[in-house]
Amino acid sequence: MHYKTQIEAAKQGILTDQVKLAAEKENRSAEWIRERLANGVITIPANIHHQSLSAEGIGDGLKTKINVNLGISGDAKNYDLEMNKVKMAVKMGTESIMDLSNYGKTHEFREKLIEYSPAMIGTVPMYDAIGYLEKDLLKMTADDFLRVVEAHAKEGVDFMTIHAGINRRAIEGFKRSGRRMNIVSRGGSLLFAWMEMTGNENPFFEHYNDVLEILHEHDAVISIGDSLRPGCLDDSTDAGQIGELIEIGYLTDRAWKAGVQVLVEGPGHMAIDEIAANMKLQKRLCHNAPFYVLGPLVTDIAPGYDHITSAIGGAIAASNGANFLCYVTPAEHLRLPDLTDVRDGIIAAKIAAHAADIANKLPGARDQDNRMADARQKLDWDAMFKEAIDPEKAKRYYESVPPAQKHTCSMCGKMCAVRTTNKILSGEKVIFCDEDGDCS
Amino acid sequence: MHYKTQIEAAKQGILTDQVKLAAEKENRSAEWIRERLANGVITIPANIHHQSLSAEGIGDGLKTKINVNLGISGDAKNYDLEMNKVKMAVKMGTESIMDLSNYGKTHEFREKLIEYSPAMIGTVPMYDAIGYLEKDLLKMTADDFLRVVEAHAKEGVDFMTIHAGINRRAIEGFKRSGRRMNIVSRGGSLLFAWMEMTGNENPFFEHYNDVLEILHEHDAVISIGDSLRPGCLDDSTDAGQIGELIEIGYLTDRAWKAGVQVLVEGPGHMAIDEIAANMKLQKRLCHNAPFYVLGPLVTDIAPGYDHITSAIGGAIAASNGANFLCYVTPAEHLRLPDLTDVRDGIIAAKIAAHAADIANKLPGARDQDNRMADARQKLDWDAMFKEAIDPEKAKRYYESVPPAQKHTCSMCGKMCAVRTTNKILSGEKVIFCDEDGDCS
Repeated sequence: MHYKTQIEAAKQGILTDQVKLAAEKENRSAEWIRERLANGVITIPANIHHQSLSAEGIGDGLKTKINVNLGISGDAKNYDLEMNKVKMAVKMGTESIMDLSNYGKTHEFREKLIEYSPAMIGTVPMYDAIGYLEKDLLKMTADDFLRVVEAHAKEGVDFMTIHAGINRRAIEGFKRSGRRMNIVSRGGSLLFAWMEMTGNENPFFEHYNDVLEILHEHDAVISIGDSLRPGCLDDSTDAGQIGELIEIGYLTDRAWKAGVQVLVEGPGHMAIDEIAANMKLQKRLCHNAPFYVLGPLVTDIAPGYDHITSAIGGAIAASNGANFLCYVTPAEHLRLPDLTDVRDGIIAAKIAAHAADIANKLPGARDQDNRMADARQKLDWDAMFKEAIDPEKAKRYYESVPPAQKHTCSMCGKMCAVRTTNKILSGEKVIFCDEDGDCS
Repeated sequence: MHYKTQIEAAKQGILTDQVKLAAEKENRSAEWIRERLANGVITIPANIHHQSLSAEGIGDGLKTKINVNLGISGDAKNYDLEMNKVKMAVKMGTESIMDLSNYGKTHEFREKLIEYSPAMIGTVPMYDAIGYLEKDLLKMTADDFLRVVEAHAKEGVDFMTIHAGINRRAIEGFKRSGRRMNIVSRGGSLLFAWMEMTGNENPFFEHYNDVLEILHEHDAVISIGDSLRPGCLDDSTDAGQIGELIEIGYLTDRAWKAGVQVLVEGPGHMAIDEIAANMKLQKRLCHNAPFYVLGPLVTDIAPGYDHITSAIGGAIAASNGANFLCYVTPAEHLRLPDLTDVRDGIIAAKIAAHAADIANKLPGARDQDNRMADARQKLDWDAMFKEAIDPEKAKRYYESVPPAQKHTCSMCGKMCAVRTTNKILSGEKVIFCDEDGDCS
């Protein structure tokens, strides 16, 4: 083997199994994928130790992928419940699962997860550091942080969020301009706290070459975290956020030079009119690296419905350059999501991703929509359920109020526009009143 | 009184009570509203017989308004249930209610509705025609259709959807180009059927002056319906839709000349990348008349979740020129909505409208978001619930899983980024492990 990572193989012109599989899933040629992989435009997270993986590409020209967050925490210690979420997420077709465990036997859960999951697995080593090292934040050394990264890489984690961009420069910029909600990134806040308490530089930035070396060895992707992600509309696209993005762009280039694949993380809360500009900015500053966004949540006032605020933002983002959407559930800002929240979050994210794929004119993106339209035109309910994103719910709703008129639904009954138009176009007459003149 | 309608008053420089009220609600001056009302850019639906109305303006520069559809039909004859929907919709702040009743004592229900509702009331007289006239469609005369319009106008309906644009020219265009789902507008399909069966021209088009005269008398707004609204992605922005829009633009101008206020109806199903162009096209062809859109639904495959597909499309539409969003519930395409569906539909539409108002930089649009951000920064949960679009749900979610750590939520617990950052910025240290070295 002359390469360690997918990007190195691609640069050597090698079509790996992962490239072939990713290509097949996208109706693209393997060579088309390889070329973009070599340039960093496409990333294929595929840790060499993740045997159960069904590889996917992320990047421009490919379907928008979605990620599901879950994991064990101090307030949610039920392993089985989290594994149920995993199984449901995989069944629903999510391409990625981030294990954000920060409590208890995180290693054990992660091991089961990686063994089971065909979806790519991501983690945020910072979340796990305190628990893994059993050491308080203040006592940690730069070396400690790297040990956690190495542990995750060896376990088979496909991509890791590493907040290397929040260095002294970025913090200076953030402090100088100020903002309403400061830092809302969990990993980012921990690093910020460590840097402020110890007076040291960000260990992932200072020892970036060492980080890259670890990742390179196992072909773990660096997903460069945005610690200064806006936590409210008022903070978006500010000097803090964009200053950090500039650092991330610099780190992207260095990772590629070290043969490490890259994802760049972005947004959070952001008004609709800023989204397209942010996507352009990331592509330019980060040299067309794939963009992985949370939300964006297009208003701050909808806790309980942030799967909807983020579906709006995510659809706009993904039709303007974002490649990978992190789902947001109705529980966001309020509690850890339960199984139903996870389900609702996945469906909202899938809708956003699919709508963007259509807007991006990806090959075959409209096929299912066209089949649905044909089924509707024929009033073929079984075919409609089959094409529905959630056949069970569609059927349950339809059957809950049986329509008086066969083939129509209770919404319009005999006034159904499709029924009326079909009759007329096929040369029939439409009759609404019976022979006794009863028109009800 | 030297005027019959709001637009006539505005042209004479008169500031009506409705103009003053609408201005107050928008943080605009009455003169600012009057000027745009005179030009047709703003419409204030306010039938002279609707005494309980709290008038609202619709148009560029004003908050995006939302409409709730409900009504009695053959499959849903429960008057009380529909009145409960009305009360909830009003309480939730919807600015408009369309009564789409097409069964039984529609007159009686409408009377109660208009007597009660501070929200503007819209109807589609075509839906009611068969029941009102107790006559089958084929037997109706042009005069019959006008009688229904007059009945609604006299009852106090503020705006009426009248499908005057689907004339012979529009039908010829639609038939020539063909489309996947043909006609999905209920009223449009009835007119199409009548025209095809009788061989006559569209009665609302042929007798447009008479229609305008009736509406003018009571200051009922004409909401020019789009019969060729795309019923699937594949039909959007096609020759049929745009051909009809050209007719609608012509009719808009004629209505204004007759002193009648106008709304223009549009979209349906439409891919994201076509939405902005459609908004521009409507504003140009319809001389900047307010645009009232259904959806747009950005994919066809999500029955059961079309409140989300339409929130995406609606937010994009309203941040590109649409002024008035018709809500879509999770029951769309499947059944008549129940109370919960209506609620979910209203919230999704409100989110879309609000997100667009922010993008449109309306005065004060971000105030509530900023208050929410401040509450979050202080981890002040009561203040967060207060600013939430649905305080009850937000509180219920939060309290369902009590966090171990006071002030945080169960999502991050002691790892809460806001808590960590607040401590560091106020000069404290953050400690995660207890004195015995327990870091769990």
